[in-house]
This record gives sequence, structure tokens and C-alpha cells, in this order.
Amino acid sequence: MSGDIIYLDYAAATPVDERVFAAMQPYFSEKYFNPSSPYKQAIEVRREYEEAKQRIAMAIGAKGDELIMTAGATESINLAFHHVEGHVITSKIEHPAVIEVAKHLGHTLIRPNEQGRINAESIQAALRPDTELISIGLANSELGTIQPLRKIAEIVGRERSKRAEEGNTTPLLFHTDASQGFGQIDVNVARLGVDMLTLNAAKIYGPKQVGLLWLKSSVRLKPTVLGGGQERGLRSGTENVAGTIGFAMAAELASKARSSENERLGALRNKLEDLLVQRFEGAVITGSIKHRLPGHLHISFPGIDAERIIFMLENEGILVATGSACSANKGTASHVLRALELPEDVINGSLRLTLGRQTSEEDVVKAAAAITRAIDSEYRRMGNVHD
Amino acid sequence: MSGDIIYLDYAAATPVDERVFAAMQPYFSEKYFNPSSPYKQAIEVRREYEEAKQRIAMAIGAKGDELIMTAGATESINLAFHHVEGHVITSKIEHPAVIEVAKHLGHTLIRPNEQGRINAESIQAALRPDTELISIGLANSELGTIQPLRKIAEIVGRERSKRAEEGNTTPLLFHTDASQGFGQIDVNVARLGVDMLTLNAAKIYGPKQVGLLWLKSSVRLKPTVLGGGQERGLRSGTENVAGTIGFAMAAELASKARSSENERLGALRNKLEDLLVQRFEGAVITGSIKHRLPGHLHISFPGIDAERIIFMLENEGILVATGSACSANKGTASHVLRALELPEDVINGSLRLTLGRQTSEEDVVKAAAAITRAIDSEYRRMGNVHD
Repeated sequence: MSGDIIYLDYAAATPVDERVFAAMQPYFSEKYFNPSSPYKQAIEVRREYEEAKQRIAMAIGAKGDELIMTAGATESINLAFHHVEGHVITSKIEHPAVIEVAKHLGHTLIRPNEQGRINAESIQAALRPDTELISIGLANSELGTIQPLRKIAEIVGRERSKRAEEGNTTPLLFHTDASQGFGQIDVNVARLGVDMLTLNAAKIYGPKQVGLLWLKSSVRLKPTVLGGGQERGLRSGTENVAGTIGFAMAAELASKARSSENERLGALRNKLEDLLVQRFEGAVITGSIKHRLPGHLHISFPGIDAERIIFMLENEGILVATGSACSANKGTASHVLRALELPEDVINGSLRLTLGRQTSEEDVVKAAAAITRAIDSEYRRMGNVHD
Repeated sequence: MSGDIIYLDYAAATPVDERVFAAMQPYFSEKYFNPSSPYKQAIEVRREYEEAKQRIAMAIGAKGDELIMTAGATESINLAFHHVEGHVITSKIEHPAVIEVAKHLGHTLIRPNEQGRINAESIQAALRPDTELISIGLANSELGTIQPLRKIAEIVGRERSKRAEEGNTTPLLFHTDASQGFGQIDVNVARLGVDMLTLNAAKIYGPKQVGLLWLKSSVRLKPTVLGGGQERGLRSGTENVAGTIGFAMAAELASKARSSENERLGALRNKLEDLLVQRFEGAVITGSIKHRLPGHLHISFPGIDAERIIFMLENEGILVATGSACSANKGTASHVLRALELPEDVINGSLRLTLGRQTSEEDVVKAAAAITRAIDSEYRRMGNVHD
């Protein structure tokens, strides 16, 4: 199925790396034991599970027992917000889970600037004495724009000191959904200065339906799922051994390859961008050019209907996205592009091209040619209609 | 790892059937697309996902769109209870998730009879005008005891009629965790008379971390996980395509083999039971003899320390359980055996032997011999100590 295609939608889903798959495989039909069982084969599985958590933790500068394994980023985000009773601050361009959960609480949704960046000053301005949580994603999954988390963490630190002086005991936590950036950006929880961090194995060539929430050891949450008391009582249910083993392998592979792979992806992305921008004067790059994931190209051809382009490209075996695929609400324009207050024709003409581990230079050249043909043909068709 | 062992702990975990694994495999690295993506390869994956739900639904006499896919029974149970604000009725021998969730609500925990059965009359007696949910598992995972769900459903029906007459508009729902029985008992939601039903792929040779909650189409729940709106808005997050495809294959295999496999397992279990009971006069079978899963043998050797037996058997490659493995709280006696108010020496001498698809007659004979040797040696050791 994937043999003849050029896949440029790595932000929507990544194939499981064959080394990840090989690492997981024994845990389906051989080492299938329940990690809570009392015999040595099960105790060995429990040990390998804890070790895998430790390996994932290492990749983000954390400890294994600070990780709560979940069924993905959406669940992690729900868990991160579950203890909050007061006010939360997040942005208009976050993952739908963040926005939906925030809407059930007192909330301020920050508007990004025209490059899709969240100004730390806007966070400062939105702070209230009852603000309990700030949640800003590390990198936006549509635009690839990287956010200034370190600056936001400094604001959080100052606000905490201020509260301590004023005798305000409301705790303030800083959460980031780092699912999109992890694997392309060096994610270290201490350097980022966050208290909670969400990751998703499916974004880094690991298995789907496997995520985690990292918690600074001082953070106390309220469980979302009650039961046998697994994952420090915060997320009951028999542990996902195969998935966690796969996540660990994926995290290690991503860490090891990051700098060389980023250089490679950045060069390919720039080539793709150049080929398209040079050919189409009116093309618009959306999001921050400077603070951008190396594999991400968000480009608009104003006046074009991107959905028609996707269909034309699909017929040539080239798979790209328009807007975010992480939503079941089809047919509505991307909430991220809306939040940037882009003109309607820029929004409707937007393609998200995301490159990944299997993208080659040949793929990029072929894709640029196919996109060029498709856009040309659309402009011609529209010209003809209007002539 | 599993080559030389005799595994008699199928109630704690089942190996993934090779046909299930083969069905899942393409969805890791080939058909890895996000089912919400717009191109035909992703739409095909979405179709296969929906089809898999339909196939699982068929196995329980339901419709595909009535299933909410989850990360396992624990999550399903949490979702089933999440809308409740009033009183719930459940039993003292339920899955820890049921009991923990119930404890956060007004609740009555029914005591089973000495055979581990829940009398429908006890449910009747516990009903209050504000009772919103009754949750009784189809078969107890420790004892294998099958519960009279149909009779409980009749009581629910009568209570609903009574409420309608009295103008009491409090809705009353009946949920069952059928994880343990499914695959050995014919599970048909209409015949059982339930409104919600939990299943777990990991109990039927399917993948771990894959479960579902079936909802009668009239039932309205409150989401536990907010986000992109997948699974009818009740459980957001990118769909678990590989897991659901595996679940469908596992459900079909279980349905097809059920009657012949049950006959085979029942005969093997009876042989194992006979070999042990004939040798040890004092052995006690716990739970209902008549209403029992065919692969289940819960047997106690009073005076023996079951944990020592498990260790001795493990050294001969025979893996069995004491108490429930579905709990992270080690070192405490089973809440199920406590609820039956069994004498302390019966509780402490209890083994759970659960047979499954790979259990052979040779395994049973070997296991009986090894258990006999272990128990003999323990009685001798204790005799020596006390002589």
C-alpha cells in the first residue's frame, strides 16, 4: 500500500519503524504475561516495562517513575488538566484536546501573533490570582511553529515568587504538549522549565495509542481512570508493555538521529519550499520561518481550493494534508489558521507538507513537480472559467 | 520464553493468537495512516476500522456504531460510570475499577452468596429511588463464577416500569463487565438484557490495551476524554486501528471455536480437578461448581501457603495464580475471597488455575502431578515442623 506513494503527512501519522516493531513483537505472543502476576516470567516483563519507562525518561532528562503511561496525547492532556478547578491559560492554536478541556474551566485563550507564535508577554497579561495551569504546545502540529516555552517558564517562576510573597497559595503549573516537537527538538524537561509534559509515541515512528504524561515529582494530580492502581494510581489498567517497549525504542532512535536527521530534513524542506515559492510568486508561507520544525512546510496558494489539490496529488500517489487531521470534525476550516486571522483565500489554499524519515530528495523533487502541475492546472481552470 | 512452560493463568493474560497478530501487522508500518486524513489510503483505513467495529459488534449482537473503543476494561468501566450522580449498586467481588469508581458515589456493595453468586433478590433489595446504575460482571475473573444477569435485567425492567408509574424520572441503567466471560459464554447484549457492556481484547487472545464499551443506542453518557471528538465524542484520540482490527479477529475466532473449545476446556478442567480432589481430601473448590467458566478451577488446600506453591511450581515451569493479578496492590489477600468470608486458611491456600487455547491434556496431567508433589512436600514440611 505504501510502496508507490510519496508520503508528506508525517505530522498526521508516522509508520512504525521496523526496529520499533521488532522490539515490540515478542510482547504479543511470547512475553504476554500480566506484569502483576507473581511468577518470574511476569516479574521479568514488569522489569522490562519499568526499564523501558526509564529509557524514555532518559530521552527527556527525567526519571522513569515520573512518567504516567497513557493511550496517547489526548488522554495525557486530559489527565494534566483533571485536577484544575480555577483558571487556565492556553492558546487558540493548541491541540483540540487542550481547547476542549479548557472550555470546561475558567479559561483565557491567547491569540498567537501573525507568525503563529505565542508571546510570553500575552501569557503574563492573562495571569490571574486564580490561574492554576498554563498549557502551551512545544511546536504547533499544523504550522510547525516552535513556541518560546523557556520564556513562558520564566514568567511562571516570577508569578510563583510573587504569589509566595503575597501569601497566595494557589499552585501554578506549566504543561506542554511536546508531541509534535519531540524527535525534532531537544526536549529536556529541566531546560524547558515545565512541570508536566505530554508525549506521543505515534509522532516519532512508535506505536499508536501510546503516550505519556511526565510529572515533576512534586506535582500531585487527580486520577482520571480508577481501578487497580497502576501508574501511581493515576491511570489504572494493565500496563501496555508492548507499546511502552516500542515507545522506548522509538525515543532512543529519535534522540540518536536527531541532529543529522534535522539537517537532512531542513535541507529537503528548504528545497521543496524554494521550488514552489520560485514558481508561484503569490505563495504564502504560514507560521514562523525562523522558529519552525525542520520537516514542516505550511504553504498557501491563495485562490486555490486545497482540497482539490489534495485529490489531484493523491491520484499521483502524493499524500499531503490540509489543516489538522487530528479532528473528527471534517469540513470545517482549521482552528489554527482561523486563529491567525489569515485571509479566507489563504486559509482555503493551504497545504501542510510534512517530511520524515523516509522522505528522499527524489520524493521532494517529484512532489514539487506534481504540486506545480496541480496548481497550474487549477489556476488555468479558474482562468478559463472566469475568461 | 514460553516454550517450556505450562501456562495455567489465562485469566490474567492471554497470548495474542498468531492469526490476530497477522491481521494487525499491516497497520503498524504499511497502513499507518491517520484515519482522519483526507486521501484515499487513509479513508480506506477508516473504512477497515469501522468494519472491524462492525465485526466485533456482530459477535455480541450489536451494531458497530454502538461501540466506544477504549484502552481496556478499566477505561470502559470508568466511562460507564462517568455520568452517574446518584446511587449505584454493584458487588463486593467486582473488578477493582468497578469498586473504586463506585466508592466515589453513593453505593451499595452486594455480598455474594457462599458460591460467589450474586442473588438477583439482593439487587432488588438494594434498589433506591435514586439508583442510577447497577454493575455486575458476567463472570468473576478469580472464581470463574457466572452471574445471573438475565434475572437482574428482569428486576431492572420491573423497576423502570414502577418508576414510570410513580413519575420517578431517574434513569436506571444496567452495565456488565463481560471481559472475563466473553469467548467462553455466548454474549448477546439483547439476550443478556443489559444497557452497557465492557469487553477486553486481552482476555480473548487479542491485543492488550484494547477494550470497548457497548452502549444501547438510547444511552447517553458523559465523555471521560475530551478532544478531537472521535468515538461519538465520548472518547477522543486518534483511533487504535491495529488494536481494533486485532480485536475483531480475536472476537471472530472466539465465537467460531466457542462450543468445541468449551467442551475441550471443561473436560480438561474436570480432569485436573478430579486428579487433585481425589488425591487431597481436604481440597476445597471455591465458587459455584454449576455456574462456572469451563476453563476455570479455583481450588484451595487449607493450611498450605499458596505463595510457596506458586514458587515451587514456577521452578517446574508451571505458571499459576493466587488471587487476582489485576491489581497493583500486592501482598494483600484477594478482595473476592474476603467477600466470600472464607476461613483464613482456605483463602491463603487458594490457587487459581485457568486453562486456555494452548492447554493440552499432557499439560493438565503434568500440572496435576507437579501440584501434588508441591502440596505433599509442603504438608510434609509442616508435619515435620509441628512433630
